[in-house]
Amino acid sequence: MTDLNAMGLSARHASYQLAELTAPQKNALLNTLADELEKNSPAILAANAKDIEQGKANGLTEALIDRLLLTEERLSAIASDVRMVARLEDPVGEEFDAKILENGLRLRKRRVPVGVLGVIYEARPNVTIDVAALSLKTGNACILRGGKETTQSNAAVTQIIQSVLKQHGVDAAAVQSINDPDRALVAQLLKLDAYVDMIIPRGGKGLHKLCIEQATIPVITGGIGICHLFVDESADLSGSVKIVENAKVQRPSVCNSLDTVLVHEAVAAEFLPQLADELAKSAVSLRLDPASQVILANHSIDSQAAQAEDFDQEWLSLVLSVKVVADLDEAVSHIRQHSTQHSDGILTSTLSAANRFVNSVNSAAVYVNASTRFTDGAQFGLGAEVAVSTQKLHARGPMGLSELTTYKWIGEGDMLARS
Amino acid sequence: MTDLNAMGLSARHASYQLAELTAPQKNALLNTLADELEKNSPAILAANAKDIEQGKANGLTEALIDRLLLTEERLSAIASDVRMVARLEDPVGEEFDAKILENGLRLRKRRVPVGVLGVIYEARPNVTIDVAALSLKTGNACILRGGKETTQSNAAVTQIIQSVLKQHGVDAAAVQSINDPDRALVAQLLKLDAYVDMIIPRGGKGLHKLCIEQATIPVITGGIGICHLFVDESADLSGSVKIVENAKVQRPSVCNSLDTVLVHEAVAAEFLPQLADELAKSAVSLRLDPASQVILANHSIDSQAAQAEDFDQEWLSLVLSVKVVADLDEAVSHIRQHSTQHSDGILTSTLSAANRFVNSVNSAAVYVNASTRFTDGAQFGLGAEVAVSTQKLHARGPMGLSELTTYKWIGEGDMLARS
Repeated sequence: MTDLNAMGLSARHASYQLAELTAPQKNALLNTLADELEKNSPAILAANAKDIEQGKANGLTEALIDRLLLTEERLSAIASDVRMVARLEDPVGEEFDAKILENGLRLRKRRVPVGVLGVIYEARPNVTIDVAALSLKTGNACILRGGKETTQSNAAVTQIIQSVLKQHGVDAAAVQSINDPDRALVAQLLKLDAYVDMIIPRGGKGLHKLCIEQATIPVITGGIGICHLFVDESADLSGSVKIVENAKVQRPSVCNSLDTVLVHEAVAAEFLPQLADELAKSAVSLRLDPASQVILANHSIDSQAAQAEDFDQEWLSLVLSVKVVADLDEAVSHIRQHSTQHSDGILTSTLSAANRFVNSVNSAAVYVNASTRFTDGAQFGLGAEVAVSTQKLHARGPMGLSELTTYKWIGEGDMLARS
Repeated sequence: MTDLNAMGLSARHASYQLAELTAPQKNALLNTLADELEKNSPAILAANAKDIEQGKANGLTEALIDRLLLTEERLSAIASDVRMVARLEDPVGEEFDAKILENGLRLRKRRVPVGVLGVIYEARPNVTIDVAALSLKTGNACILRGGKETTQSNAAVTQIIQSVLKQHGVDAAAVQSINDPDRALVAQLLKLDAYVDMIIPRGGKGLHKLCIEQATIPVITGGIGICHLFVDESADLSGSVKIVENAKVQRPSVCNSLDTVLVHEAVAAEFLPQLADELAKSAVSLRLDPASQVILANHSIDSQAAQAEDFDQEWLSLVLSVKVVADLDEAVSHIRQHSTQHSDGILTSTLSAANRFVNSVNSAAVYVNASTRFTDGAQFGLGAEVAVSTQKLHARGPMGLSELTTYKWIGEGDMLARS
């Protein structure tokens, strides 16, 4: 039987040791881990084959089976990612905001690990390695709960991680995985506030909702993007077509892809047919409000009348909602109502419009003349991405290594001088 | 009947306006508020008198009655604090971490208000004004829930705040107060995640526990300090007596006051009698572990044998737990087990001991040769203090104005240049 309390307690203890590892020690450990993942690929792929077999028996879709699947090449790419994490700068130990107070106290902040992370995710066994590597790099212990579809793969990978930890003299409890498929364990993990400092859910709406409602631990919600671009009356229209096309078509299955385009009524009749011409090439299907329906009435692109709920839809596919708005104010108010505050942008040639939009739209990432697809740790130069936060506290937008740390204040008095 | 959903929705709308106010606009509003509080002191004091009368009828203690009580002088001091908040630098709008990415995107972070704050507190009507002023300064709307003992005072104060808001053309929903004593409203507020971005509880353990368990909104817990000082074998003993005395005696009723002193066994026999001599002058009562009991057996200071639970006690009074430890490791492990991660320190003359302690103890504030009493927004030079956070995400330790803000990423593409 899985004893979450015992796991939490041992993770907490391991976190004390992790917090004191030097950057070279952590990097050496990560490089060994990358090597061992490659060396042990037969064992990992064998475990993964069992998950795949089970998945097929359970009638999982081809797409899902592909997400579960590990191959020699994929494992190699994962190992390379671990080596890349080893090369990133270690944020832990950085000191900042140093000052000497009037009362004589020398005060500074030091960046330290958060402690113990609880990460809950679905499918994709690569996440297990990914999250373990980022946790170890930042001196955090972690308790991982992967999807039940990858139990075998996760168990095999965790075993390798733990043997590498031991080999480097580190408490194996630093990375633990809940492989028992009992769903009650998720609810228990969410209430393990005595030992777990931060919950990161990586999955769909249902998982995030569960975490928000059940957790007694701070939750980093995110990864769900109902993203908007507003084409202002002064926008360069051919440039706007390219940006909208990029935002919708480049990788429609991810959270930073575009869901709704809002078009200023002054340019809608000119812009929408151009946009439809371009999107039709990629077989995009439109959901049109009444005004855009009239404009595109004779266009050959696949389309339907938009239902009210279509504007609250994260499409994750080649579907795009379209709405004509009277002005920037209506665009902003639509976004305030329907956006998940992930990524929203304006396409305009007018500085005042750009400024008003940027001031009024309070999403994690707000763009001017750029695609929502930019919202990404790698694009933003963070080196790695743990998650994309759409909540407002602690971290917003793409989370890199620093966002897995916190700080403590260190105050030094002058007793020695006075004594 | 109080309709929390309506309050939340209107607070959210007001927050849009607040986010766009300039610093001079907000400061002018705060200065008017200070003036109006003084001008309207008869109305406020009359409302407060009703609370006091009710409190006496309900048999509240003298100490609690004193906390509820407003006087002309106290109101004047509160108004001065509001003027002081007006003079602080506005963190909103600050831009940082600007960079131009390889892909050409110009990226920066901008500091913005969190949105809507939910603040739940007990007694003390000054908190209503305090929190409203800090919220307005940082462009946040707030929904306040004060203690039932100050309903009349809070209602009177809120009315004045709202009339000042209107006078400055600001939506009065920017500051709202739940004056209905129905306790179910607290539970509802904690689940108002559609509109409220952050919950700040200011009160005892029970309130914090309720918030952690019930809230679907991020909660800033804190304000509860089981604080430790460890007197190392190399400590300057007479200096240590002074620091321990300061940490325990200066203001025992607050969260940063000392609760437990840990003493290295090599100096316990010499140090403890000196400490007891000093603390006896202030009528401190000790809770002694067996080893310190032996050492102080013949001392006249008031003391009792410590019970196990005494080491998990935030005393908030002139009581101090005492424990002799074998070495720094035992001190660290005691602190890890019993501290609330508020403020803990070491008194030592050895740099290596100081470093080991600072590295190993992960509290919001860690001290070397200084009193735990330093953990305070004013002492730390933050200008104002909203709360002292003992959790690890978003903010740790004293929270100033910046900690009531978040950031958004702003990305600007080059369509204009290309077009």
